[in-house]
Amino acid sequence: MSFDYDVIVIGSGPGGYATALRTSELGLHTAVIEMRDEVGGTCLNRGCIPTKAYLTAAHTLHDAKRAHVWGLDISVNAVDMSALKAAKDKTVTGVVKGLTQHMKARSIDIIHGEGSLLAPHQVRVVDGEDARELSAQHVVLATGSRPAELDGFPVDGERILSSDEALDLTEQPESVVIVGAGAIALEFATFWNSLGTQVTVLLRKDAPLSRWDSHVSSVIMRTMKREGVHFETHSHITSVAEDGTVTYAVANAKTGDETEKTVSADKVLIAIGRVPNTQADWFAGAGIDLDERGFIRTDAYGRTNLEDVWAVGDATGGLLLAHEAFEQALTVSESIAGRSTHVVDTRTIPQVVYGIIDAVSIGYTAQQAEDAGFEGVEETVVPQLSNPRVAMLGANGTTVLVTALSDGSDEKAARIVVGVHMAGPSASELAGAAREIIQNRIPLTDAANALFAHPTLSETLGETLLKADGRPLNVR
Amino acid sequence: MSFDYDVIVIGSGPGGYATALRTSELGLHTAVIEMRDEVGGTCLNRGCIPTKAYLTAAHTLHDAKRAHVWGLDISVNAVDMSALKAAKDKTVTGVVKGLTQHMKARSIDIIHGEGSLLAPHQVRVVDGEDARELSAQHVVLATGSRPAELDGFPVDGERILSSDEALDLTEQPESVVIVGAGAIALEFATFWNSLGTQVTVLLRKDAPLSRWDSHVSSVIMRTMKREGVHFETHSHITSVAEDGTVTYAVANAKTGDETEKTVSADKVLIAIGRVPNTQADWFAGAGIDLDERGFIRTDAYGRTNLEDVWAVGDATGGLLLAHEAFEQALTVSESIAGRSTHVVDTRTIPQVVYGIIDAVSIGYTAQQAEDAGFEGVEETVVPQLSNPRVAMLGANGTTVLVTALSDGSDEKAARIVVGVHMAGPSASELAGAAREIIQNRIPLTDAANALFAHPTLSETLGETLLKADGRPLNVR
Repeated sequence: MSFDYDVIVIGSGPGGYATALRTSELGLHTAVIEMRDEVGGTCLNRGCIPTKAYLTAAHTLHDAKRAHVWGLDISVNAVDMSALKAAKDKTVTGVVKGLTQHMKARSIDIIHGEGSLLAPHQVRVVDGEDARELSAQHVVLATGSRPAELDGFPVDGERILSSDEALDLTEQPESVVIVGAGAIALEFATFWNSLGTQVTVLLRKDAPLSRWDSHVSSVIMRTMKREGVHFETHSHITSVAEDGTVTYAVANAKTGDETEKTVSADKVLIAIGRVPNTQADWFAGAGIDLDERGFIRTDAYGRTNLEDVWAVGDATGGLLLAHEAFEQALTVSESIAGRSTHVVDTRTIPQVVYGIIDAVSIGYTAQQAEDAGFEGVEETVVPQLSNPRVAMLGANGTTVLVTALSDGSDEKAARIVVGVHMAGPSASELAGAAREIIQNRIPLTDAANALFAHPTLSETLGETLLKADGRPLNVR
Repeated sequence: MSFDYDVIVIGSGPGGYATALRTSELGLHTAVIEMRDEVGGTCLNRGCIPTKAYLTAAHTLHDAKRAHVWGLDISVNAVDMSALKAAKDKTVTGVVKGLTQHMKARSIDIIHGEGSLLAPHQVRVVDGEDARELSAQHVVLATGSRPAELDGFPVDGERILSSDEALDLTEQPESVVIVGAGAIALEFATFWNSLGTQVTVLLRKDAPLSRWDSHVSSVIMRTMKREGVHFETHSHITSVAEDGTVTYAVANAKTGDETEKTVSADKVLIAIGRVPNTQADWFAGAGIDLDERGFIRTDAYGRTNLEDVWAVGDATGGLLLAHEAFEQALTVSESIAGRSTHVVDTRTIPQVVYGIIDAVSIGYTAQQAEDAGFEGVEETVVPQLSNPRVAMLGANGTTVLVTALSDGSDEKAARIVVGVHMAGPSASELAGAAREIIQNRIPLTDAANALFAHPTLSETLGETLLKADGRPLNVR
């Protein structure tokens, strides 16, 4: 049987484009179908990249406001939100352009249109009036996700926004209400707060990142509060009036009794999570198996229930992170090419929330490790204030290491690291070391022996490894 | 035989204090002798910490000057060098105070005075008029190092400075000449340049960091030039006149012919390296074996030629880095306590030069790996510009990975990483991941499979691992 392509990928976000990059590199004739004008998906256009551009500006503002501590007379005269948005767009455009060139250099066909799966090997592409069918030996679904909507608070792009609209404001709001307590909510809170916008975050639990290690989430909340963000815990939004008055209910943590409160907000950001782009008319006819939340079901290698149909990225659930999608893409591509490959271990993938200080979570919390049946679980918590670089930044943080006995028989290698959870400056940059240790099951003693460079923020992890190994050095 | 102490440590820098912290923790009665007013040695008082305080200010200035790129109107009105110096002092005082408390909490006696070794187990302490003898089961020499002097250019503290004096200037020099091309020279160049001082660096070779991987050193030089630092390669200083005119000879790289040039400089910083504090009257009587450059000779566990006399830190040579001293301290302490321990592998210790972008070197360069007899040495060089976070910072960088075949028999695990060399923003924070991979001999494929968080600077390392493993993803 002859196909138009060896591989057709539907969607050009991190999962899709990384699959295409790898399959084409492995010699497979590959096309990517993208219904939007630009490749890159949420991450490049409406997620990771634009938010980090804004947070780069937030860091500059934060450091400038703190410059007096170093005897530097620096004034923040004005923020031109329109220019800042343009700089963000320029950043995005640069990254998208780089990706487009990279895909072309690997001879990937980028096909414009809305792709749907008709049956295994058969894809339909609709571009306006134009519709055509293409065939491929393998089809990879990488259709991504979109902001979840909150019942009763439909996004209107004026008063009520999702992250998509929030990224494209050309005027700085005076005040915002953010509904949500995950990465997107917190990153926008940090950004807007750095501009001087009044930020109120409404969250249902007693801290953001409620499924994270509690040391980390409480340090994040404390730090953001100190920066000026207002958190309303145990709350939920009840109405948004025409004049911008936002009403919300706050439950008493003990009694559960609710009090109604109001705050004025130019904008309300709904950031309660994301849902998969697995609309019925894209795959349903073909019989793709979805889970109860609409995510595509796959096996550990990315295979769907249909032969030669694979799926990667946000549409498959998991952590909904770009680097998770990259990793799935490598596994799927190598499987398609008939190579031996590794199975993605979602458990070791770093979750990161970026901010003036970052939050990182890799692997198990102590409770999760015990629940998962690990023996001898120990938790080591080291505040970061004793780190001189943290102190120089006027920041704080915490490092939490979860260790357990490995099931190996080598006694020296008995204890391994099964979780690292951090809040602190540039913690996102330290996640790589933590992941190498966890995923490669480096014995705790060996990991600790590899001392980190002094004086760096990374020593917060190194000192915690030493302490967990019973050899606390520069910490208590 | 009864001694005053189980362990006496002479010197309270990183090598000394870390030894004391660890031996006391292991239950040994420990004293530290320090001849200066404050504990902490060069690193805390005249090295790592104060320079990083200044570089924190340099980063703030750098980012503020670049703020317009983000639509931020930020002005740098003035730098109060006296206040900046005071802020640096406050940082140092805070770290020294923390260390002092930490040592006291571990019941370490801090003894003020100049310590010398009379014989094994016998130490003399002179504090002004006061002299006394103390005995210990073990004596650890941790006397550190000091700036090397340049013949003909004695440090006068007015015109000609070592790093010691340079840290304590209360007025910003208009112009400086820096003699040297190592970490200290480059860090001062970055700092002064950030203030607006005219900086001329005189170096003998064609690039700074001449023993480093050449990709790294050339990126560092190019970046610092772009920031405004003037480098005079193939040059050496010939005179400093009373009026501040500095004369230097520049050799033609091809012919070797020298041309004389002059530049005006308020200050001349001599930063040509460091020499050990192993003055004859401290140890010579006891018969401690020194090498030809005056460094104390030790075995891999820190033993000197004298029984129960050990040495750690700068006084023993090596890389003269604080984290190297920490690691030696752990090995010596555990050896003294009769515990099994690991031998410090100097080859895997990260060397770092801090700046607007950092330089990091761990392990072998390609040439060194071949010279050391590794088979199948390969070098993978990835420019960092494709990393979106690097681009957002307007920075650049390079990552160089040196891999080789391991001597293990497991074919899958055949290729390992033997060197990582980086120039780039926050590279110092990425050194930890690189070291874990190198020191623990994680197979290249496994190291590469642990994808780094997106979007972070750390992906510069992750992408290079993938490329070295034959799977380039977001890079060519």
